[in-house]
Amino acid sequence: MENLWTKNLRDIEPYVPGEQSKEEDIVKLNANENPYPPSPKVVNAIKNFDCSLLRLYPDANALPLKEAIADYYNVSVSNVFLGNGSDDVIAIAFQALFNSSYPVVFPDLTYSFYPVWCSLFNIDYKTYAVDADFRIHAEDYKERNGGVIIPNPNAPTSLGEPREFVEELMSYNQDSVVIIDEAYVDFGGESCIELTKKYENLLVTGTFSKSRSLAGMRIGFAVGSEKLISVLEAVKNSYNSYTIDAVSIEAGRASILDDKYFRSTCNKIIQTRQRVTQEMRAMGFTVLDSQTNFIFVTKSDISMYEMFEYLKTKKVFIRYFSLPRIHNYVRISIGTDEEMDILLKEVKGFLK
Amino acid sequence: MENLWTKNLRDIEPYVPGEQSKEEDIVKLNANENPYPPSPKVVNAIKNFDCSLLRLYPDANALPLKEAIADYYNVSVSNVFLGNGSDDVIAIAFQALFNSSYPVVFPDLTYSFYPVWCSLFNIDYKTYAVDADFRIHAEDYKERNGGVIIPNPNAPTSLGEPREFVEELMSYNQDSVVIIDEAYVDFGGESCIELTKKYENLLVTGTFSKSRSLAGMRIGFAVGSEKLISVLEAVKNSYNSYTIDAVSIEAGRASILDDKYFRSTCNKIIQTRQRVTQEMRAMGFTVLDSQTNFIFVTKSDISMYEMFEYLKTKKVFIRYFSLPRIHNYVRISIGTDEEMDILLKEVKGFLK
Repeated sequence: MENLWTKNLRDIEPYVPGEQSKEEDIVKLNANENPYPPSPKVVNAIKNFDCSLLRLYPDANALPLKEAIADYYNVSVSNVFLGNGSDDVIAIAFQALFNSSYPVVFPDLTYSFYPVWCSLFNIDYKTYAVDADFRIHAEDYKERNGGVIIPNPNAPTSLGEPREFVEELMSYNQDSVVIIDEAYVDFGGESCIELTKKYENLLVTGTFSKSRSLAGMRIGFAVGSEKLISVLEAVKNSYNSYTIDAVSIEAGRASILDDKYFRSTCNKIIQTRQRVTQEMRAMGFTVLDSQTNFIFVTKSDISMYEMFEYLKTKKVFIRYFSLPRIHNYVRISIGTDEEMDILLKEVKGFLK
Repeated sequence: MENLWTKNLRDIEPYVPGEQSKEEDIVKLNANENPYPPSPKVVNAIKNFDCSLLRLYPDANALPLKEAIADYYNVSVSNVFLGNGSDDVIAIAFQALFNSSYPVVFPDLTYSFYPVWCSLFNIDYKTYAVDADFRIHAEDYKERNGGVIIPNPNAPTSLGEPREFVEELMSYNQDSVVIIDEAYVDFGGESCIELTKKYENLLVTGTFSKSRSLAGMRIGFAVGSEKLISVLEAVKNSYNSYTIDAVSIEAGRASILDDKYFRSTCNKIIQTRQRVTQEMRAMGFTVLDSQTNFIFVTKSDISMYEMFEYLKTKKVFIRYFSLPRIHNYVRISIGTDEEMDILLKEVKGFLK
C-alpha cells in the first residue's frame, strides 16, 4: 500500500539527460560542444579570481556581466537578463511570458526541451510541421496563440532563417510574446537582437555554452524590451536571486571582452564545417546547409542508425534521434579538423 | 492602451533582493555571510582547475560533489540532491513535493522566501505563530496539510529545536512531506539528516553558503529517501539539467574534504557569538540563545530601528525587519572578532 504522502509528489516523466561517455580518447561529436577551450582571458579571470570573495553572495544582478553583454549588443543593462545556462533563461521565460489560455506554438522538429517545459508548467502547446526541406514558414504562425518560440538557426536541422523571417513572424504575432532562441546564431546565422528595439514583445535568448566554449560554466542570457526583462527579473527573483556565481560573472565578462578570440574560434568551426560538408557530400551524403556548429546528415541508401552504432564502436560519438521524420538522420557536432578527419575516415570505413 | 500581449505576462510582485552596499571599509553583518574565506583546499581546486574542460557540459549529476556529500553524511548518492544554492533546492522541492489541495504550513516568523515560492507556484499556505519566546511547537502542526517546511535553527530568530522536535513533528505528519531547512545547523544546531533513514517523507536541506564560506559559489543540497530524491531529480531535469557548473563541483568537493578547516571556522564563529552575546547582554540587550551565525537582539527601552540606522552611519550594516512582532529586533551576523569589536564599540556609542 502506498503512503498518502506520495499522492502529493509531482507525477512527472523523469527527463534523463543524455548519457555522456567518460572514456578517454573518444571523439565526442554528440553534444554540440565547442572543440576549442575558452579564451585565455577567461582562464586568467578564473586563475586570478580572488577566492576570498566567495564567502560573500554574488551580485544578484551580475552587473559586470550584464554590462559587458549590453555593450556588446548595443543595448542597455535593463534590456539584458541572465540565467544559469539558456535552459534556465527559457524556463523562466515560459513561466513569466506564456500565461494564456491559448497554446504556445513551436515547430514539430526543434529543441526537445520546449514540450518538457510546457509539461512542467502546465502550458498547453501546439506544433507546426517544418516543411519537407525542414524549413519553418512564418505564415504557419498566424493563428492566435499564447506565445511563440523558435530556435534560429533551428536544431537539430541546422537551418537558419533570415531576419525577414522574424519580421514576418512579428507581423502575425502582435498579441503574444515571441521568443527567438539564438543558441547557435554565432556560427553563421542572422541575429535579430537589433529587432528587440523595434518589437517590445520580442525576446532573443543566447548562450555561452556553444560559441563561447563555456558549457561548463552555465551562462545564458536574453535580450528584450525593459517590459519583458522586468517580468523575467520578477519571476527569477521570486525563485532564486543568485543564479550566476561570482566566478561565472568574471569568466563570462572576460569572454565577451575577448572578441578577437571569439571570432577566430567561431570562424575555425565554420571553415571546418564547410570542408566536412563538402567531403561528406562527395561521399554521397545529403548534408543540410548548416548555420550552426553541427551538421544534419542523411543518406537514403543506408541506415543512419547503423552508422551511428558503428561509429560508437570506433569511439566516435555522434547523435541519433529515434523520432518520426528524422529517423534516418544523424547530428554531427563540428570538432577540430583532426577530430573531423577521424570521423571522415571511420565513415568511409563504414561505407565500405 | 496596453498591448494584448502584456496580458500573458505573469503578474507577480517583483521580489527585490536586499541592497548590498558596495562601499569599502564597511562592517557587513547583514547577510549572514561567513567572515572567513573558504578552505585553502577550495582555493587550490579553483586555481588548479583545468579550464579547457569548460568547453564541455558539466556532469549533470555532479557526481564528484554528490559522492563527497553522501560520504560525509553517511548516506548513498541516491539520497543526495544538488542545486544552485539552497533557494534553488527548496524551490524545486516546493514544485516537486507540495502538490496537494491542503495548504503548505510553516511558522509565521521564518525565511521570507517560503510565501514567495508559494505565490510563484500557486501553492496555498498557512502559518502557525511561534510562541512569545519565538519557539516552534510541533503540536501546532497536527492539522492535515499539503506539506511542512521549518528551518531548524529558525531564521531570523536564531533558535534551534532538538531532534525530538522533528521526531514529534514526523509523528503528526505521516501523510505529507516534511522539509527541515538546515541552512544554519552547522553553528550548533542538531541535524536530523540521520532521521531521513527512518522517515521516507522527511527531506533535509542544506547550503554551502554559510558554514562553508561559499555563498559566491551557489551550492545547495538536500538529503532524503530515494523516493523523494528521484522526484526532485525528475523536476530538476525537466527544468535545467546542468545547474552546478564544473568549477563549483570541484570547489564544493574540496570544501567537504577539508573537514578540519570547516570545523575550525565554525568553532571560531560560535566562540565569537558567545562572547558578543555576553557583552551585549551586559549592556542590557536581550539576545536570544543563538544556534546560528547571527544573533537576534532587542532592548525594550530603545528603538532597534534607530540603532540600525545609527550603525549604518558608522558603516556597520546589520539587518532590520519592518515586520509585526519583531519590529523592535535586529539581526546581527557574526563576523570576525575585530568586526564584532567595532560593532560593540559603535553600539556603546549609540547607547550613550
